[in-house]
Amino acid sequence: MKVTVLSGGIGAARFLHGLANTIEPSSITAVCNVSDDLTWHGLHVSPDLDTVMYTLAGLEGEFGWGVRGDTQTTIETLRGLGSEEWFSIGDRDLATHLYRTGHLRAGSTLTEVTQALMTAHGVEVNVLPVTDEPHPTIVRTAEGDLQFQDYFVRLGAGVNVTGFEFPGRDARPAPGVLRAIGDADLVVIAPSNPFVSITPMLVVQSVRQTLARAPGKRVAISPIVAGAAVKGPAAAMLESLGYEVSATSVARLYQGLIDLFVVDAADEALLPEIRALGIEAVAVDTMMTGDEGRARVARNVLVAAGFEP
Amino acid sequence: MKVTVLSGGIGAARFLHGLANTIEPSSITAVCNVSDDLTWHGLHVSPDLDTVMYTLAGLEGEFGWGVRGDTQTTIETLRGLGSEEWFSIGDRDLATHLYRTGHLRAGSTLTEVTQALMTAHGVEVNVLPVTDEPHPTIVRTAEGDLQFQDYFVRLGAGVNVTGFEFPGRDARPAPGVLRAIGDADLVVIAPSNPFVSITPMLVVQSVRQTLARAPGKRVAISPIVAGAAVKGPAAAMLESLGYEVSATSVARLYQGLIDLFVVDAADEALLPEIRALGIEAVAVDTMMTGDEGRARVARNVLVAAGFEP
Repeated sequence: MKVTVLSGGIGAARFLHGLANTIEPSSITAVCNVSDDLTWHGLHVSPDLDTVMYTLAGLEGEFGWGVRGDTQTTIETLRGLGSEEWFSIGDRDLATHLYRTGHLRAGSTLTEVTQALMTAHGVEVNVLPVTDEPHPTIVRTAEGDLQFQDYFVRLGAGVNVTGFEFPGRDARPAPGVLRAIGDADLVVIAPSNPFVSITPMLVVQSVRQTLARAPGKRVAISPIVAGAAVKGPAAAMLESLGYEVSATSVARLYQGLIDLFVVDAADEALLPEIRALGIEAVAVDTMMTGDEGRARVARNVLVAAGFEP
Repeated sequence: MKVTVLSGGIGAARFLHGLANTIEPSSITAVCNVSDDLTWHGLHVSPDLDTVMYTLAGLEGEFGWGVRGDTQTTIETLRGLGSEEWFSIGDRDLATHLYRTGHLRAGSTLTEVTQALMTAHGVEVNVLPVTDEPHPTIVRTAEGDLQFQDYFVRLGAGVNVTGFEFPGRDARPAPGVLRAIGDADLVVIAPSNPFVSITPMLVVQSVRQTLARAPGKRVAISPIVAGAAVKGPAAAMLESLGYEVSATSVARLYQGLIDLFVVDAADEALLPEIRALGIEAVAVDTMMTGDEGRARVARNVLVAAGFEP
């Protein structure tokens, strides 16, 4: 059984962690968003790839990103030099960015560096960046166009979003991405932000078409529970873009791409309206609290999709 | 009284430190070698500029480079990822390279970044990179052409040097460099490696000519004492290039550029042969042990050059 997960950051990482504790990790492929990537003092930082890596390695920080218990010597020294640092990068985390940047500059692809980093961290899930090419998300706001991290971290996602731009939308998929979607028995769209985690992957050349035609079962997990986002700015984005803040709105965004939409048990009342979109729907516990919660959600999704873990 | 010091790394930094404790620091300009600079995992590292900065700030590490008492979290994590790290960069030191790289990428010149870093470290000496342009030293050896740090750190300066190449020899001097040499009352060639610290600066456009015609008193301090280098590979280079390993050989390299050559008291016997080159020569204590030793050497050089500190 082959499972491919379209992954953003924290929500996806936790689902993948639960899944890797439920089925054989090497049967899982994570196709990962890179449109949050940024250049920080010359270093290539890939927040979603790193969150997935640290979480699968059991190293993730308290808030879901970075390395748990990491020290902040370098960033504090930078601040002492007068550098305005709105990004907090720990000393151990920094090694990942140095490693990646050094290998990219030496000619490796992001796919190759990612594989090397995953191996070094003992991660058996096959983690693929959706593309090896630059493919940033530009967030359109009342304050002008912003780089994603500028919007998300510096401004704390505190400005009204009016749209998104993907100047790298013609990026080619990284090796293995289309096959991972097309060959999987089960494709899961993780409970990630539909606008800035999932859509940027869908606009990569052929990804949307491959998913639309994929013969495997295609399931999405709602990142919106009871009218709020479990993590991050998805609810605020839905609202400022004029959508109702509900799981149903997310299901509508995935129409034509999924066979089954999984909402949290708290949203059971939404099942009829989601089914009215022509999408099979089910309500299960999707709260990924602790290692057990993560594995339970993975099992719930597998069972809902018709697979016996 | 204006003093300009042509500076390599450790020897120059110690002399500058002594000088800054002897005369008004803001009357001192250090023109600094950048031909040891390297790109490390995408970061711009300037070893000589940093050694001068940390030493003048009283932060220099036990062995003369890096930050004293620095932690090694990031580099040890990198090693744990399987990265072969022959360069040891501490966590606090790393902030300097991130700061420099970020500002260079944002369009600042190396001169501007250097000034900002010096100010942040409370350094009042005016420290100038000799050029803002790439200007690496290539070391020719029996093992082939090597980048300087490859030769110096990775191979521990343990291969025979047959020559040097400066592919950036047409680099333009950074703003203020020629004026600092031409306007100084005293120009000091620090006790640095003549081949890989001083020569790379002399081959920058107009630097040699400006020094040859400079109206101030021009003094060089021998980095060779009693037939050995105080620090680094100068003696090994002299030998493998077919020179006698002595202060006299260094004086000969600077013929036409200096008025006075300062040797250590241990080399007093060499004074006649140096004077025979047409260079005034004097023997004084040049051992820069401790803060007091550094200041004493600075005073000795000033007095020998005819200045009363």
